[in-house]
Amino acid sequence: MAALNLSNMKPEDFKEFMNSFDTVLTDCDGVLWIYSEIISGSPQTINRLKEIGKKIFYVTNNSTKTRDELYKKSQDMGYKSDKEEVVSTAYLAAKYLQEQGFKDKVYVIGSTGITQEMDMAGIKHTDIGPDHMPSSLPQLISQKLDPEVKAVVVGFDEHFSYPKMLKAASYLARKDCLFVATNTDEQFPMNTELVIPGTGSIVRAVETCGARNAFVVGKPHSYISEFLVKTHKIDPTRTIMIGDRCNTDILLGKRCGFKTLLVLSGVSTVNEINSWKESSDEELRQLVPDFYIGKLGDLLPMME
Amino acid sequence: MAALNLSNMKPEDFKEFMNSFDTVLTDCDGVLWIYSEIISGSPQTINRLKEIGKKIFYVTNNSTKTRDELYKKSQDMGYKSDKEEVVSTAYLAAKYLQEQGFKDKVYVIGSTGITQEMDMAGIKHTDIGPDHMPSSLPQLISQKLDPEVKAVVVGFDEHFSYPKMLKAASYLARKDCLFVATNTDEQFPMNTELVIPGTGSIVRAVETCGARNAFVVGKPHSYISEFLVKTHKIDPTRTIMIGDRCNTDILLGKRCGFKTLLVLSGVSTVNEINSWKESSDEELRQLVPDFYIGKLGDLLPMME
Repeated sequence: MAALNLSNMKPEDFKEFMNSFDTVLTDCDGVLWIYSEIISGSPQTINRLKEIGKKIFYVTNNSTKTRDELYKKSQDMGYKSDKEEVVSTAYLAAKYLQEQGFKDKVYVIGSTGITQEMDMAGIKHTDIGPDHMPSSLPQLISQKLDPEVKAVVVGFDEHFSYPKMLKAASYLARKDCLFVATNTDEQFPMNTELVIPGTGSIVRAVETCGARNAFVVGKPHSYISEFLVKTHKIDPTRTIMIGDRCNTDILLGKRCGFKTLLVLSGVSTVNEINSWKESSDEELRQLVPDFYIGKLGDLLPMME
Repeated sequence: MAALNLSNMKPEDFKEFMNSFDTVLTDCDGVLWIYSEIISGSPQTINRLKEIGKKIFYVTNNSTKTRDELYKKSQDMGYKSDKEEVVSTAYLAAKYLQEQGFKDKVYVIGSTGITQEMDMAGIKHTDIGPDHMPSSLPQLISQKLDPEVKAVVVGFDEHFSYPKMLKAASYLARKDCLFVATNTDEQFPMNTELVIPGTGSIVRAVETCGARNAFVVGKPHSYISEFLVKTHKIDPTRTIMIGDRCNTDILLGKRCGFKTLLVLSGVSTVNEINSWKESSDEELRQLVPDFYIGKLGDLLPMME
């Protein structure tokens, strides 16, 4: 387990590093931006990598936005992106259902990010938004299920509620019902007193009452890599994954045979890496990136 | 792993069986009643066991009712119970907090079963009921937390919602915040198309966003036994646990050194037991009861 600091690398080693990949998968939040703030130097670095011939993909677990919306966000922030380069989990969920030849209706726990991707893929779905508890449990239990539903897709949903759990679990009890989750991030990192539950908390609730595990399309699950290999012919051995979160970004890279670069502008820290390096737990050692650097923009002067 | 059918037992073996315990812990739903229906023969059997000198405890994971309410229900159905014999998880949650010397306020995800037990124990708590999502995420995030809260108690709550997850996770991030769950049952058994999520689904959601495991007072966790040993001086080696659900009732018995008797009037079946007996998985073999019988009432004629 290495975890080399790129900033300390000799120029010849850095050149070798740069020649070791032709495809860059970059996480978005924590690497390119933090919510609506650009991380300084990131756009120039990504644009330079593209100029020198690297294929770029923007790979995010965010399920609340469509690919179009993420593409526009990246453009607005100065990233010279193409729409095809954006790979988001709402989009992947729709792609996965298409691959399965899905022709029925999806019960969606999520937001417009998911329903709009379903619309674009021509997949029928239920409505999103609040689903409040009726005034009594017997009323809830006397509700009718939608006979067409043959898949449950779970993403981030701030209107997640007990009636949604009940419906999801009931649909999941149907024979051949597909079960897809966008991602399993437990929390959103925030610098406030509040802890903001992530999609993973919602997924665990539905998995528990549904007594089944979801097929997860987001990082660190390998579907995203299979999709890129199939659709964009990437070569995993010539690919680097850049991210700020070891248990999603770096772990994805490790599982898929990518090189891995951690940037310290987001969630994970050097102290964490150092503690994992020494761990006797193989799962923790898997979280250690091959390389790390303060922020993505620190690469730019080294590349000149 | 035996799993003897009590109905096939020779009279002398049955006598030995009856002499092997002085304390009976009985589950309620599926053994004594199913929702509001008495299971025929169960009241007479429990009352006879009491008459011949066995100590009886009614042990239920149901967190929606207070001990008083469960006591009244048992009385109405013809069980010659005492209030002290009823051990429910809402009551146990309050007892546990008292034992910890808890003096602050509890954030409750649950129903009146929990808040009334808290009131009776003199423990301050937040209100229950709907907590709907404000019209936007920024509004949700700008909410204030209650500075007094130093414990989160999670039980069954049909008004469970994303804002509740956020508050629970935020309180759980506080130093020294206690985290108690009444039980972890994944689903309520129902003979309908609908699957009714149990408290366990809610607990998993909160554990995931709170990044902590709850202290569970209900079956199959051993707190209930520790409570009975301490408060009622039961002798685990002279105790039998009767239940209809192997992963709560029988597992509790196995973990606590009780004898275990499965009744087939509820969730678990003989086929399941037989498959577990053969399993190479030690955890599944632990679910196999020492004894089983069709229903509790089948014991009565054997006792005469």
